[in-house]
Amino acid sequence: MIYKRCYFTLLFMWLHMVSAWSQGNTAKPNIILLIADDHGTDALGCYGNPVIQTPNLDQLAAEGVRFTNAFCTSASCSPSRTVILSGLHNHANGMYGLEHSYHHFNSFAHVQSLPVLLAKAGYQTARIGKFHVAPEEVYAFQNVLSGGKANDPTSLGRNAVQMAELSKDFITSTTKPFFLYFATDDPHRSNKVFPNGEPDFGTAGEPNSFGNRQEGYPGVKQVTYQPGQVLVPPFLPDTKESRAELAQYYQAVSRVDQGVGKLITYLKAAGKYENTIIIYLSDNGVAFPGAKTTLYEAGIKLPCIIRNPGSKRKGIVQNGMVSWADITPTILDLAGAIPANPTFHGRSFRKLLEEEHVSGWDEVYASHSLHEITMYYPMRAVRTRQYKLIYNIAHQLPFPLALDLVKSFTWQGSLQAGSAKFGKRRIEAFLHRPQFELYDIEKDPDEIHNLADNAQYKAIFNQLLQKLKQFQQQTHDPWIHKWEYE
Amino acid sequence: MIYKRCYFTLLFMWLHMVSAWSQGNTAKPNIILLIADDHGTDALGCYGNPVIQTPNLDQLAAEGVRFTNAFCTSASCSPSRTVILSGLHNHANGMYGLEHSYHHFNSFAHVQSLPVLLAKAGYQTARIGKFHVAPEEVYAFQNVLSGGKANDPTSLGRNAVQMAELSKDFITSTTKPFFLYFATDDPHRSNKVFPNGEPDFGTAGEPNSFGNRQEGYPGVKQVTYQPGQVLVPPFLPDTKESRAELAQYYQAVSRVDQGVGKLITYLKAAGKYENTIIIYLSDNGVAFPGAKTTLYEAGIKLPCIIRNPGSKRKGIVQNGMVSWADITPTILDLAGAIPANPTFHGRSFRKLLEEEHVSGWDEVYASHSLHEITMYYPMRAVRTRQYKLIYNIAHQLPFPLALDLVKSFTWQGSLQAGSAKFGKRRIEAFLHRPQFELYDIEKDPDEIHNLADNAQYKAIFNQLLQKLKQFQQQTHDPWIHKWEYE
Repeated sequence: MIYKRCYFTLLFMWLHMVSAWSQGNTAKPNIILLIADDHGTDALGCYGNPVIQTPNLDQLAAEGVRFTNAFCTSASCSPSRTVILSGLHNHANGMYGLEHSYHHFNSFAHVQSLPVLLAKAGYQTARIGKFHVAPEEVYAFQNVLSGGKANDPTSLGRNAVQMAELSKDFITSTTKPFFLYFATDDPHRSNKVFPNGEPDFGTAGEPNSFGNRQEGYPGVKQVTYQPGQVLVPPFLPDTKESRAELAQYYQAVSRVDQGVGKLITYLKAAGKYENTIIIYLSDNGVAFPGAKTTLYEAGIKLPCIIRNPGSKRKGIVQNGMVSWADITPTILDLAGAIPANPTFHGRSFRKLLEEEHVSGWDEVYASHSLHEITMYYPMRAVRTRQYKLIYNIAHQLPFPLALDLVKSFTWQGSLQAGSAKFGKRRIEAFLHRPQFELYDIEKDPDEIHNLADNAQYKAIFNQLLQKLKQFQQQTHDPWIHKWEYE
Repeated sequence: MIYKRCYFTLLFMWLHMVSAWSQGNTAKPNIILLIADDHGTDALGCYGNPVIQTPNLDQLAAEGVRFTNAFCTSASCSPSRTVILSGLHNHANGMYGLEHSYHHFNSFAHVQSLPVLLAKAGYQTARIGKFHVAPEEVYAFQNVLSGGKANDPTSLGRNAVQMAELSKDFITSTTKPFFLYFATDDPHRSNKVFPNGEPDFGTAGEPNSFGNRQEGYPGVKQVTYQPGQVLVPPFLPDTKESRAELAQYYQAVSRVDQGVGKLITYLKAAGKYENTIIIYLSDNGVAFPGAKTTLYEAGIKLPCIIRNPGSKRKGIVQNGMVSWADITPTILDLAGAIPANPTFHGRSFRKLLEEEHVSGWDEVYASHSLHEITMYYPMRAVRTRQYKLIYNIAHQLPFPLALDLVKSFTWQGSLQAGSAKFGKRRIEAFLHRPQFELYDIEKDPDEIHNLADNAQYKAIFNQLLQKLKQFQQQTHDPWIHKWEYE
């Protein structure tokens, strides 16, 4: 009798294990993480731009969730990508600035990255396009479908359609659940290369081409825009230079969109569209002064579109506040692969893919350290629904403009015209910042009126400053010493 | 007849080759590179200090060459060590700041280091003691006799005598020519360790112990000093705090000296003293504010003693101006191992080991980028026989004091006493520096009177500035952009 009971118990346990195992293998969704380079919310149909043509991304939003309060934590390519892939702020993962060339930043060897954790959970992982993080061992993908050198004029990452074609075999033939990291070089500014190998962003008084070529790209239908057509966002001056460059930028965005469309075609053909989560986001804001490398809204408030076929609802517009530190925990959650003792700075926003109103998503934090090695400008920020407090740690320095921005047709045009302002912001205020900037984003969305020294906002200021310090403490920020020793 | 002539020619060539080969193998000297940690010229008998006991180093100087104008190029541990080991300035080898912990700087993978080049030339290479450079592959030694973690209170590097003992087998039994890199942790400031693994330099109102312990070290005869005895160098205030700390520092230096003595004993016992070049130097100046991490004389003008048994002359006092960028080329020259197309920033000063007066050694360059990751303070300097021009690239920032210095008993003592000066320098001037500092070192050896804005020195200033720019150009300094874009 006892034996019999044991027998049944064991049989039950075994069946349960087999069931759990097979569920674990069949129920895990495929995941595609699409990362655009320097794409702001200004240039997407589904984010309200009626001019730009992004039908595939708009469709993805219609079938999924479009986030209206999604933020990167550092508006610099390599740092932001490591935050996305580690769930840790750059100041804690070691990628304090750009990876390529003499900038040479790289993450700590002990960082556990998203592709590595997914591989441990049984995923087949692959990357294609721009990489721009290091070391390779930390951000290890099992399959490298194309290299990912930054600022490479011949990069495959300029043709998202070709990237999709090169990904086809991986997404079609992989029998395990897969994770594809698909990172375009578009719509980053393009460059030539100096003889010493450094990128040359000089355009000799012409608009940057943003990767566009006279001869086009194989498989890509050229979608061009007229300078008169584009919408000039409020952080930019409305000049012939900015319009000419925005038109080029739009064209590069439309190229990305076509690649997304092609990828979806292949997914559908492989019968995997309904078991593949697609996430589209950008590493940081558009490559114009006032956006990229700043913690102003245009630099950090970014597109984020997620289609989760497992969700019951479609077409959600989600205004919960999430950041790129949440991406790794969220993906791991969706993959059922959160490690035993997670140490991420972010947290899973899986629930936000199901319903509009989820409490507890009302603030995000940002941390920028350097961009280029010569561009030390550590900033920490907290952004609540109404306010943003920016702490400019090295505020005594002039704000360093990245080489692609300082040489831009748009910036140089403003300087040559002798403008006092760039967009709505005084150039002087842009280049020389106070230690603290406090903005009421609701009343002042362009962040022009600094309230940090306004007595009426003293309580708000103190409350946010306290939050920032806590953030620095909790995320092991090396710059926390500056409170004590400077 | 023709055959006979050919025969003799071939025989002659063969004999010549055999001779060259055997000479190449037997004539190569062994090389020991001794690197002390934060040891200034202020604390060595042979450099004129009558109090400190450094008999072994003094003897080495008596038998070799003592440099009175030897300079590191960056007064920060990891950067300086990589310059020593690569012949390249830190801004060109990638080690812009400290290696350990979250600072996490490391050299470019393409850097060819001294141990690697010597190994290629047939040397057996080994290191013992403090390493503090990265990556390991770039600074690869065939034998690692002890690890070299920075700020490790249990490091072997605090007992140079024990280091010598551990090196004995290597120097005795190696049949090939050898290269031993022998780097003490002495006389660096000592520290405890916070629970999070970071070094804790707080001493709660006590002098730092500089590695000295009540119980002493095995094999080391404790040589102690009284605060009343020590010589207070001009860059330090003469206070009870500075004296107490200098006494501790002296004690640590005497420990290094005993290790050098022990090593020489083993070399002699192995019959290798007369075929071993011994080089003694320090990575940077003493760990007090005003020296370490600055480009002032106390930070960069350092001990350099070289005993080359192959030299005909002994006891040379050499005032040629050399820098740590010259160390790798010089050692490779002595080893007959200069690569085919050398790209070093420094050059061999081999001739200076033979004779006092060699022309063309009348200026050196320095380049400091960061120390800790939070301590961005790039400086470039040219030092001629009479002048020094320092270019403080981020002069708008307060000068960042390293954690071991800001917490020091000496610095805190001055602050608490409300002193306006630290040594001869105003604290205000020390912490807030102009873009340019020009000193007449002959008239003003303490670098107090900045002549950069003095009209009488305009021509000198311009000439030196031109040299600095050329230096930046020739050594591929990323910070050269600052001339154009800031």
